Amino acid sequence: MLTNLSECNFTPKEELESRISQLRKSMEKQGLAFSIILQNVDLFYFAGTIQKGFLVISVDHDPMLFIERNIDRAAIETTLDITPIQRDKDVKDILVDKGILKGIGGMELDVVPVSVFERWKSLLGFENFTDVWPLIRDLRIVKSPFEIIQVKKSGGVCDHVFEKARDVVQEGMREVDIAAALEAEGRRVGHQGFLRMRGLNQEMMNLYITHGRSGTIPSSGDVPIAGTGITHAIAQGPSLNKVERGVPVIIDYGGGYNGYITDETRPFVVGEMKERFRKPYEVAKEIVEDATAYGKEGIDGTELFNRAEAKAKAAGLEEYFMGFGPGKVSFVGHGLGLEINELPVITPRHHIVLQEGMVFAFEPKFILPGEGAIGIEVDYIVRKDRLERVTRTPIDLVVL
Amino acid sequence: MLTNLSECNFTPKEELESRISQLRKSMEKQGLAFSIILQNVDLFYFAGTIQKGFLVISVDHDPMLFIERNIDRAAIETTLDITPIQRDKDVKDILVDKGILKGIGGMELDVVPVSVFERWKSLLGFENFTDVWPLIRDLRIVKSPFEIIQVKKSGGVCDHVFEKARDVVQEGMREVDIAAALEAEGRRVGHQGFLRMRGLNQEMMNLYITHGRSGTIPSSGDVPIAGTGITHAIAQGPSLNKVERGVPVIIDYGGGYNGYITDETRPFVVGEMKERFRKPYEVAKEIVEDATAYGKEGIDGTELFNRAEAKAKAAGLEEYFMGFGPGKVSFVGHGLGLEINELPVITPRHHIVLQEGMVFAFEPKFILPGEGAIGIEVDYIVRKDRLERVTRTPIDLVVL
Repeated sequence: MLTNLSECNFTPKEELESRISQLRKSMEKQGLAFSIILQNVDLFYFAGTIQKGFLVISVDHDPMLFIERNIDRAAIETTLDITPIQRDKDVKDILVDKGILKGIGGMELDVVPVSVFERWKSLLGFENFTDVWPLIRDLRIVKSPFEIIQVKKSGGVCDHVFEKARDVVQEGMREVDIAAALEAEGRRVGHQGFLRMRGLNQEMMNLYITHGRSGTIPSSGDVPIAGTGITHAIAQGPSLNKVERGVPVIIDYGGGYNGYITDETRPFVVGEMKERFRKPYEVAKEIVEDATAYGKEGIDGTELFNRAEAKAKAAGLEEYFMGFGPGKVSFVGHGLGLEINELPVITPRHHIVLQEGMVFAFEPKFILPGEGAIGIEVDYIVRKDRLERVTRTPIDLVVL
Repeated sequence: MLTNLSECNFTPKEELESRISQLRKSMEKQGLAFSIILQNVDLFYFAGTIQKGFLVISVDHDPMLFIERNIDRAAIETTLDITPIQRDKDVKDILVDKGILKGIGGMELDVVPVSVFERWKSLLGFENFTDVWPLIRDLRIVKSPFEIIQVKKSGGVCDHVFEKARDVVQEGMREVDIAAALEAEGRRVGHQGFLRMRGLNQEMMNLYITHGRSGTIPSSGDVPIAGTGITHAIAQGPSLNKVERGVPVIIDYGGGYNGYITDETRPFVVGEMKERFRKPYEVAKEIVEDATAYGKEGIDGTELFNRAEAKAKAAGLEEYFMGFGPGKVSFVGHGLGLEINELPVITPRHHIVLQEGMVFAFEPKFILPGEGAIGIEVDYIVRKDRLERVTRTPIDLVVL
C-alpha cells in the first residue's frame, strides 16, 4: 500500500522483542509493573512505528500497541500486534480487564507535559506513576548491530555533504546560502528531513554554518558553537555573514537516516588560513587523533575529556576550549542515536565507562572571541579494542 | 556586538508592555498571583528574546526576566530589565524576598514536562500552580499591527517559493528533489529555518510535496495531507515518488519570518490535469472564493466550515473532503502565529467568533484514495469588513 518505503529498514522482529524484554527486566528491577510509552521516539524504538498511538509494556503480559491512526501504516511498520482504538479513552477497560494497571506504572515524565499526565491519570483512574525515562535512556545507550547499520548510513549522508561542500563554499557567499545548498544536497541523498533533540525548548537545525564572529556568539543552547541565525526568534544557525578569505568556515552537519542521527564538523577555508587559527586547529586535530588512538571499551568518558583538556592547556588554549567566558560548555562529546542528546556525555562531571555499541560525537572546538571559531567533530562507535569512525571524511582542514 | 540582526525586527517596548499588561489582567481575573513563563515561544512573545531564561510575571510587581545565557544577546533583544542568574536555583531567594510566591501561580502546564514541573516546585518550595496556557493562548490569538507586519513578510517568503516552483517542478522529478530545491529558495530569501508546533509529539517540516498516492496516505498527524516521507522514522513529508503528467503536485509550504508562520498550499500539474481532479479542484477554489467574500469580523468559524462542507456536499465530494475514511480531519482551517497550531480552529466542533487581527490558514482539500489529493490553502488576516489575504500568489492551478 505504501510507496517508497524500503522494508529492509523496518526494525526486525527479534530486535523489537529484545528491546522490550530488556526494558521489562529493568522495570522489574525497579519495581515497575507496567509502562505507558507515549513519546514518538521511544515508541519508534520499542514498536518500530511512530503512527499515532502508544505502547503498554507490562512485566507479566504481552506488550500492547494501541494505534489510533494510521493503522494500515503501523501494521506494515511494526511486528507487534496492534490493538486499534478510536480514542485513547478506550484503553482503560482493556487495561483493567487484563489486570495491567497495578503497582507502580512508568511514564516518560521527562517529556510528558503535566496536563497530558493529569489527563492520563484521570482517564485510567490510576495515579501511581514514576519516571521510566532513566530506564529507557540507559537501554538506548548501547546500539545493536541493526542500529549501527543505520548510524553508518546516516554518516554516509554526512560524507556526501562534506564532499559537496568543497564545491559550494566560496569567498563572498553568505552562511545561509551555503546552508541552503548543502541542506538540499543532504536531502537528495536521503536525509530524513529533521533531527530530534529531547526535552523542553530543545530546538535544532540540520546544519550550522558559522564563520568569523558568528561562530563566537554563545547561544541559549548548551553547545559550543551555534551561530546567530537570521532572526532573534530562532537565534541559532547560519547568518547573513559573508565568507572572507583566511577565516575558517565551520560546517557542523547532522545526518539523519531512518531515525538515526550523526553529527560531524569540518573546518573549511578559502585561501591560506590566518595564523591565529593555525594552532587551535592543530590542537583540535591532535585531540581527535589522540581520542581515536586511546578510546575503546572500558575507558571512562572523563579520561577522554581530561586528555583533550590537557592538550588544550598544554598549548595555552584552555581559555578558548569548548567556548569562551560564559559561553564555555562542560563537555567535549555527546551520545547519538534517535535523538542528538543521548548518553554518553563526555564530560568531567560524570563518570561513564565506554561500552561496545555506544555511539558518540566528539567535538574539540576553540572559540576565539571576536575572531572566529575552529574545531573538528567526529562520530565514534565504541568497539572492544578501539573507537571506530562513523564517516569516511578526513578530519583535515579543507583549503579551497 | 551581534552581526546581521536587523534591529527593526525586535519587538517594540510598548508591544511587550501591552502583552504583559494584558496577561496580568487575565491572571487577575482568574485569581493567579504570578506566572512563570518557561517555554521558548511564550518567552519570545512576552520578552522578545528566547535566550536561556524565564520570565516571572506578577500581578503586583514589575515583570522579572531572568537570563542564564546569552545575557549580552538578550540585552540587545529585549526592552525588559534583565536579572542575570547563574542557575535557575538562584531565583528562589529573589522571588521570596519580593513576596512574589503567594496565592496561585501559573505555569505552561500544556508543555512543561512533569519532571521539570516537579523540579521547579521543589526549587521554589511552592506547590500551588495551575495552567496559565489557556490565558496565553487567548491573548496570542489576536495579532497586533507589529505582528501582522511579520506575518506579511512571512507570506512574502511563500510568494517567492511558489513563484520559483514554476521553474522547479518537472515531469519525472522526485517529490524530495522538488522539496530540496524549494526549501533552499525559501532559506535564501529569509526563511527562519524551522517552524514551531506546540505540544508533545508535534513535529513538522517546512515543506510538503505530495503527488498522486503519497498525498492520500493518512499520517499520525491531525492534518489532511502529510505525505509518506522517505522513512517510517519520520513518516511524513516528501517521498521518492516521481512527478507524472496530469497528476497534481501539491505544494504545502510554511513560511517563517521573525518567528511568524504562514502556511499555504497550491496545486501544480505538468500537462493537462486528469479529469478526475478537475471537479474537486474547482470546488476547492470555489470554497476559498466564498470564504474570502463571506468572512470578516463577527462571523463564526463554524459558519465558514459549514459553508465549505456544504459546497463539497453539493458537488458530491463530501466523502473526500478534508480526508477520506479514517484519514478525515475535522477542520478546514487553523490559526497561525508563532506556532502553526494556534487558534482559531475552523471546525464545526467549536464556536469561535472571528475578530480583527486573528490570522488563520484556510485549506479546503480533497483526498481521492489511490489517486491523489488536490486542494488550496490560503492565509487570512481577519479585518472588520473582510478577510485580507496574506500572500499575493493567485490561488489557481499552475499548469506547467
